[in-house]
Amino acid sequence: MKVNGINFETVWMEEHQLKMIHQNKLPWEFAIHTCQNHQESCEAIREMVVRGAGAIGAAAGYAMAQAFMLAPTHKRDEFLSNAKITIESTRPTARNLFYAVEKVFEAGKKSVEAAIIEAQKIANKDKDDSRNIGLFGSNLFKEKTRVLTHCNAGWLAFVDYGTALSPVYTARDQEKEVFVYAGETRPRAQGARLTAWELHNENIPHLIIPDTAAASLMAQGLVDLIIVGADRIAMNGDVANKIGTLDRAILAQYYNIPFYVAAPGSTIDPFCKNGKEIVIEHRSTEEVLYQQGPDELGNQHKIRVVSYGTEAWNPAFDVTPAKLITGIITEKGIIKANQRSVEAFLNN
Amino acid sequence: MKVNGINFETVWMEEHQLKMIHQNKLPWEFAIHTCQNHQESCEAIREMVVRGAGAIGAAAGYAMAQAFMLAPTHKRDEFLSNAKITIESTRPTARNLFYAVEKVFEAGKKSVEAAIIEAQKIANKDKDDSRNIGLFGSNLFKEKTRVLTHCNAGWLAFVDYGTALSPVYTARDQEKEVFVYAGETRPRAQGARLTAWELHNENIPHLIIPDTAAASLMAQGLVDLIIVGADRIAMNGDVANKIGTLDRAILAQYYNIPFYVAAPGSTIDPFCKNGKEIVIEHRSTEEVLYQQGPDELGNQHKIRVVSYGTEAWNPAFDVTPAKLITGIITEKGIIKANQRSVEAFLNN
Repeated sequence: MKVNGINFETVWMEEHQLKMIHQNKLPWEFAIHTCQNHQESCEAIREMVVRGAGAIGAAAGYAMAQAFMLAPTHKRDEFLSNAKITIESTRPTARNLFYAVEKVFEAGKKSVEAAIIEAQKIANKDKDDSRNIGLFGSNLFKEKTRVLTHCNAGWLAFVDYGTALSPVYTARDQEKEVFVYAGETRPRAQGARLTAWELHNENIPHLIIPDTAAASLMAQGLVDLIIVGADRIAMNGDVANKIGTLDRAILAQYYNIPFYVAAPGSTIDPFCKNGKEIVIEHRSTEEVLYQQGPDELGNQHKIRVVSYGTEAWNPAFDVTPAKLITGIITEKGIIKANQRSVEAFLNN
Repeated sequence: MKVNGINFETVWMEEHQLKMIHQNKLPWEFAIHTCQNHQESCEAIREMVVRGAGAIGAAAGYAMAQAFMLAPTHKRDEFLSNAKITIESTRPTARNLFYAVEKVFEAGKKSVEAAIIEAQKIANKDKDDSRNIGLFGSNLFKEKTRVLTHCNAGWLAFVDYGTALSPVYTARDQEKEVFVYAGETRPRAQGARLTAWELHNENIPHLIIPDTAAASLMAQGLVDLIIVGADRIAMNGDVANKIGTLDRAILAQYYNIPFYVAAPGSTIDPFCKNGKEIVIEHRSTEEVLYQQGPDELGNQHKIRVVSYGTEAWNPAFDVTPAKLITGIITEKGIIKANQRSVEAFLNN
């Protein structure tokens, strides 16, 4: 996507350096973050300089390739195994991370070049998949459609185009009229920060809603379609995604609004039978207790937003059961969220 | 309730002055705000220095009494009619406000003293009602109960005790084991600021959850009981309350968790047939776009939390249909949320 007229991807390699859009600085500042080695890349994934299922996957694949490039000759195998473990331990929920690391690790057994090519292939495939998700998903858009999304599954969450927002961009390109309601998505407010920034950057009409206003919006008949992303999809069609996704899925069922998950096949975990097996990351309660942003002069402050002496509960994801999902928009088409369809997708 | 060992009510009169706990300064600072006349009291209600259905009602009644005390002899009736209109225009949704202003205005036709006595009576009744709501509501508590609440319907929202939190305090006094999950309640975060402050002040174990985490909490079986407040109850049992209440009611139905509304009879609007007739206040989008709080040195900052160039949708309340409400905890007992029970309550 273009930022100030220049084409950018979310994450890319230059020589042995991993470069990425600094998502913790967005939307206040557009900056590029550079990681010199896989340790720095791991730090960036952990600290969510790069975040979002696909972008994490691509970054992790590149980080593994970095390890191959920079591995010492002495105790090389040990270095690489440790690197793999370190990268895999950065974030537990996104399937794409494990998928990418495994693929690049296997390729690297042949040669360093093979590892680099594999990492590049994963990033390119993420981009192609996202574009195809946009094409298939855009069929759900009528001449005029009001979409509700949650968190950020836009191009910032992938290498380009995104998943939940890719159909929005495609529908816009098809000259359909699109309006997006983006949920703030506390505690990290990816909706208010990243989705809003993306949509504003793409000139797509939109409003931020507090996470508390979703039912009211639906009750008033203001939502035609809901599309969210996914961090991991189980074989039975259960979906782990950003905390609050489950809430919106239940509300959608109550108001009879189509609820779609948009995700590439790399999000499907063939070893995960159902949602109960998905490990949910609990993040620091600081994310709930504090918020950061600029004052009117642009100076950043970290402020307390919860009464002193009170602690918080902070699971980063929830699991939406397959029965609440109208369909999964994949790079090969829209499939049903059930065992048979997911298996057929993987075998196709 | 006691603060630092001293008994306080949320709002009270001293001579012609209306005094109140400054709720915009909480939880960071405990301060008393003084209003010299009804205009200053209106400003305090509008700016939410005092907020919460019962506290607004008491403050509005006192403000009407202030107008009687300070009315000039010249064009006295005009002054009083204008005062009534001004007070009624401060906040549109809370039923208690209109109830109190009407009552005090009628009493004032007899004498200034009658107006003062009526305002005091309304505040005292609010306190008694809240205490009785606590007694009836505490019957819903077993030896060990995990409650989810939303926004603040604690003693800060009433003259004392509160509604949704009054049963919590009573159950605690009955030596039952109580744990409270309090929703942050964006955009104004009354859960994170006021409910957390109250519960911490009362030494009740609790955690703040992001508004996005309610379904996840229920899905994990961590909630036994939900109690929320009400700003207006229609004759068919529909309830207007803080934005996000409807979401939680739908989730409660999905997970089969009892969902109670706690409110005194003064919240029932006999002229309102059903929820569709309730006027919903839309507040400034600034509430969504900015947040205020102290940095680590205690200096207050107002920071931007939504990307520049993006606007927000900010309804302050939503309407929960009666069919989603397990029961209404009133000062006369727990009633069903339907036409017959609400009518019987008013005629009783």
